[in-house]
Amino acid sequence: TEYTEEVISQKIYLESWNEGSSKSAIEDFVRKTTTENSPDFIPEKDRIAVFDNDGNLWGEQPFYFQLAYALDYVKKEAPNHPDWAKDPTLKAAMDGDVMAVMAGGEKALIDIVMKSHAGMTEDQFSAAVKDWLSTSKHPDTGRPYNRMIYQPMLELLEYLRAHGYKTFIVSGGGIDFLRVWAEEAYGIPPYQVVGSSIKAKYEEVDGKFQVVKIPELNFIDDKAGKPVGIHQHLGVKPVIASGNSDGDFQMLEYTTNQPGARLGIILHHTDSVREYAYDSLSHIGNLKRGLLEGPEKGWIIVDMAKDWSIIYPN
Amino acid sequence: TEYTEEVISQKIYLESWNEGSSKSAIEDFVRKTTTENSPDFIPEKDRIAVFDNDGNLWGEQPFYFQLAYALDYVKKEAPNHPDWAKDPTLKAAMDGDVMAVMAGGEKALIDIVMKSHAGMTEDQFSAAVKDWLSTSKHPDTGRPYNRMIYQPMLELLEYLRAHGYKTFIVSGGGIDFLRVWAEEAYGIPPYQVVGSSIKAKYEEVDGKFQVVKIPELNFIDDKAGKPVGIHQHLGVKPVIASGNSDGDFQMLEYTTNQPGARLGIILHHTDSVREYAYDSLSHIGNLKRGLLEGPEKGWIIVDMAKDWSIIYPN
Ligand SMILES: [Ca+2]
Ligand SMILES: [Ca+2]
Repeated sequence: TEYTEEVISQKIYLESWNEGSSKSAIEDFVRKTTTENSPDFIPEKDRIAVFDNDGNLWGEQPFYFQLAYALDYVKKEAPNHPDWAKDPTLKAAMDGDVMAVMAGGEKALIDIVMKSHAGMTEDQFSAAVKDWLSTSKHPDTGRPYNRMIYQPMLELLEYLRAHGYKTFIVSGGGIDFLRVWAEEAYGIPPYQVVGSSIKAKYEEVDGKFQVVKIPELNFIDDKAGKPVGIHQHLGVKPVIASGNSDGDFQMLEYTTNQPGARLGIILHHTDSVREYAYDSLSHIGNLKRGLLEGPEKGWIIVDMAKDWSIIYPN
Repeated sequence: TEYTEEVISQKIYLESWNEGSSKSAIEDFVRKTTTENSPDFIPEKDRIAVFDNDGNLWGEQPFYFQLAYALDYVKKEAPNHPDWAKDPTLKAAMDGDVMAVMAGGEKALIDIVMKSHAGMTEDQFSAAVKDWLSTSKHPDTGRPYNRMIYQPMLELLEYLRAHGYKTFIVSGGGIDFLRVWAEEAYGIPPYQVVGSSIKAKYEEVDGKFQVVKIPELNFIDDKAGKPVGIHQHLGVKPVIASGNSDGDFQMLEYTTNQPGARLGIILHHTDSVREYAYDSLSHIGNLKRGLLEGPEKGWIIVDMAKDWSIIYPN
């Protein structure tokens, strides 16, 4: 292992978490699962923590950041694809009609990505996302999107890793989109990212065999899809699951209905001043069942306004 | 990192590899990609090595070990499933007609697994595989199947990991089957295993929500499927790829046609005395194109009889 008890005890973790029941519940859980001879001790190889991304590790308002990427991409590439104007969803995207696209829900976003990205190689896609990240800004904060990550969650990831936990992303967002920037942003390598995907095939492009996206849905990693995505990609059941919406309900349920010490964490967006306040009425990140049933299941409900001293990294 | 140059230089790796061009080519490659200031240096985060399993990390003769498992399972469970006798493939399996099943190729094996395992939960499947491993023996050697792993390959995995490489399995075999025993056998955790799969869903079984197998093909991780499987599960291109048949050709091609130092390794089964000798004429592990085109691509062709001092662990 990369750490010693001594090094851990000298370092201060969770600096941006205010003292309170959320912080102490997390600390208690980590202590009891990583202290040898504790009845709740979990061997290091089984210490698996899964994190939803949108609205949990980074923001998701006023609309999914990947939707901003897809709209910008379609607008930029539209002149090269006159046929796109014939497709109602792509047409709405070309026109920047966010409301129309959002009304189509997750399906519309996937539809846009499938149709606009078909035929792209792995390398072309990564380059397009990197280019977008380096040039675009969030409409409300003016920050680059990859600086809209939550500082307290970065600290939680680091704290868990320092205690032998492996951290994974399990997101409804696009797996390839996330993989471009998750390692730099969160210290989570591409092979520890699970997400929604379209299919791909191996074929010759420009004289070289490459993996190329094809316009066919592969997997939607949301709701009851999250336990399936975890099963397919990880093949082990997590010990800790963290999310912010009812799209994470099944992931938390799947994690915490196992025997042994298990932890579910729900991030409640309560901060209308420093971030956004939304839950059961929100179109994005809708959270209702988790707030109703989570507490009786022992899940921690993190109150963003109360529990976090800062939101974004400086 | 978990190692220092000093610790590495004191430990002897690849002990069961005889001195010769294969061993020195592997050592040279690892040295040049892990020595800082070397023009071929690769940062630790990018050091990814992928390994085929059947006939590469463990044996595959006289027929795939997973087929032995599936036949034993069908035979054992048949009395509870009178309907199975109506299906020709399951009937052949029930009768232990290996030749008939093998004539159906990979498809027949997948068909047997799909039909016989539908409705099993994750936990039930793991328990069935564990039970089989602890009770069954290889027909020729009498060893338990998980002691039919290759000692020199265990040493290669360990050598690479000691030099900061992450090791993954990328197998045509069943992903869930492999995950039950790969960590104990190879030190490769479940989330670093890629393989063929059937679909699954999240549903209530015995009052508890679980992931359950459904009889629908999800993915075949073989031939041109291997680069796609790597793309889907790892999301990064490997630096080292190791396999033993033409089912690995595209995986080695995908790995070694990238810029920068890359290594392809083909294990040639040349040892009719201690193991089996087979290549271009074999029904299982057919190897023809790799032997013809591999050398000009710079791939190492490991000669099992010549390069390995022992085959199985003591
Ligand atoms: Ca979310
Ligand atoms: Ca093989």
